[in-house]
Amino acid sequence: MIKVGVVGYGTIGKRIADAVALQDDMRVVGVVKMTPDYEAKIAAARGFPVYTAADRVEKFKKAGIEVAGTVEDLVKASDVVVDASPEDVGRENKEKYYRQLDKRYIFQGGEEADVAEVSFNALANYDEARGKRYIRVVSCNTTGITRVLSALLLNGIGIRKARIFIARRGADPKEHKKGPINDVVPNPTAVPSHHGPDVQTVLKDVDIVTMAVAVPVTIMHMHMAYIELDGPRSRDEVLEAFAKTPRIFLADVGSGFQSLAQFIEYARDLGRPRGDFPEVAVFRDSVTVRGDELYLMYGVHQESIVVPENVDAIRAALGVLPKWQSIEKTDKSLKLFTEGKRYA
Amino acid sequence: MIKVGVVGYGTIGKRIADAVALQDDMRVVGVVKMTPDYEAKIAAARGFPVYTAADRVEKFKKAGIEVAGTVEDLVKASDVVVDASPEDVGRENKEKYYRQLDKRYIFQGGEEADVAEVSFNALANYDEARGKRYIRVVSCNTTGITRVLSALLLNGIGIRKARIFIARRGADPKEHKKGPINDVVPNPTAVPSHHGPDVQTVLKDVDIVTMAVAVPVTIMHMHMAYIELDGPRSRDEVLEAFAKTPRIFLADVGSGFQSLAQFIEYARDLGRPRGDFPEVAVFRDSVTVRGDELYLMYGVHQESIVVPENVDAIRAALGVLPKWQSIEKTDKSLKLFTEGKRYA
Repeated sequence: MIKVGVVGYGTIGKRIADAVALQDDMRVVGVVKMTPDYEAKIAAARGFPVYTAADRVEKFKKAGIEVAGTVEDLVKASDVVVDASPEDVGRENKEKYYRQLDKRYIFQGGEEADVAEVSFNALANYDEARGKRYIRVVSCNTTGITRVLSALLLNGIGIRKARIFIARRGADPKEHKKGPINDVVPNPTAVPSHHGPDVQTVLKDVDIVTMAVAVPVTIMHMHMAYIELDGPRSRDEVLEAFAKTPRIFLADVGSGFQSLAQFIEYARDLGRPRGDFPEVAVFRDSVTVRGDELYLMYGVHQESIVVPENVDAIRAALGVLPKWQSIEKTDKSLKLFTEGKRYA
Repeated sequence: MIKVGVVGYGTIGKRIADAVALQDDMRVVGVVKMTPDYEAKIAAARGFPVYTAADRVEKFKKAGIEVAGTVEDLVKASDVVVDASPEDVGRENKEKYYRQLDKRYIFQGGEEADVAEVSFNALANYDEARGKRYIRVVSCNTTGITRVLSALLLNGIGIRKARIFIARRGADPKEHKKGPINDVVPNPTAVPSHHGPDVQTVLKDVDIVTMAVAVPVTIMHMHMAYIELDGPRSRDEVLEAFAKTPRIFLADVGSGFQSLAQFIEYARDLGRPRGDFPEVAVFRDSVTVRGDELYLMYGVHQESIVVPENVDAIRAALGVLPKWQSIEKTDKSLKLFTEGKRYA
């Protein structure tokens, strides 16, 4: 059993902890929380030992939450530490807690790429991460793009250039202080947005440029993609590549998938935890091929898309399972859509 | 004085009536309203004679609004009728009221292109519309795209292909029944959206494909544009083309233009009527040239961008002024930004 510590139990960290708990080759040895809020209480209620910084122990005790130890204690108790702290705090933690102990460490896409030895997406470069001490799982939008491009590349469809246009959700559902409201905000105004270069940390040879705006939505990101392929292709060929590739869901307008909200409603109806949708949600009706040009729209669930990637990154870090075995194991344990998917 | 009747006094019609009233070569002879609501009262208060359908006269009288006559009466009294009715009603009006009388008629982009002899954008094809009986001013998004592409073409910068990705405002500010709320809706899911073919009604030789999604915003549309030019160009060359072209506004993040909302706030601070922004609002910081690739983001104010185009269409229909003289006259009368613009 791989002993996993989760540092940072917020939007991403709590989902990773739950996903790790579902694996039969892993166990959550504890989670680090800095504030004794309702999330901390849920962690305790789920049976995850709660750790915190040394100077916060008293606060937690006052709030009636039992503390299992300090961050240092959790790192010591772990084989792999998944850091899901807020942006840039992962890097601070690395200096403060991680360098000293010979464990494996996984960071999130909020950190700069150079926090780790390798940036990671399971479909794109699982093997490159095998045995690495520091791994960074790329961010939600980058993960979405990387899966779509990987689906093409893994099925022999070359990419001459990818130009992706992103309508980002402005905030997560619980982020009550962020905007915009009734506005569209270039995010950033400069071209390219960071997503293009970030995709190149895992798919090094792809010519990609991205632009992004933020919109008053908390539900999902929306991508509009324009991809020049290596030559004229058929729409069926492209659809088959998506259909066969794990972690990609093809949705039909005729079945009710007319907007991003439908994916989340579907996840809620399915009883998925928190109404999460970790697959890239492709609108099949939008998939259009004009000679060598491919167009499509897809949704990216910012809260959950990186969760299966983190589970795989843990196995890659320790080199305990080959790529496709890990991906399949993760998908089955998380009850992702596996029908028709090729794990090889 | 050109006698102008405005049929349909809603979001677009009321703005056209006000813009016509500001011209020294035109006069509003009346407006048609179908409901005796606050907009009808404002029309009357501004001194515009109010006309309605024959079977609605009583309703208006009951609401205390004086009726000058029926739709037929207004058409008879006009040299040019601008139809700003809801989608498809313009075509009905054509069959019911317009065919019989030898006037000039201007429709809006909500109608299909074949309602008219020519689709119209002042920069792109003013001369093509000269003397035509039926003219259609293309819709807001199409007008925005057409101005941006025309700025390039008019300044000798060729376009190999244009791929435009649109985050549409979901509704106008007053439309309380439309969505989405907290959702992003492919609009349509199929590629291309109607905007690409619609641009080709005025710029016939441009290779253009568009994709659009609707977002929970009422303020403006946002476009992300990817344009392949006829060869490598410099950023300065492109910026100069935009700077010189009428009805395009270049905005700097450093001056506070960080989102669409800033354009409307600027218009409000300037005292522009209704806080309108009829220019295409280009984020200068987004204008990026990579070899022969041009990227930019711009805002399109859906309520007002077609207003100056309608004023010019009136003059084109009657052939009373050459293209650039009409554009300049319109821009000055509406107090658009004319500094540095080349009207030739």
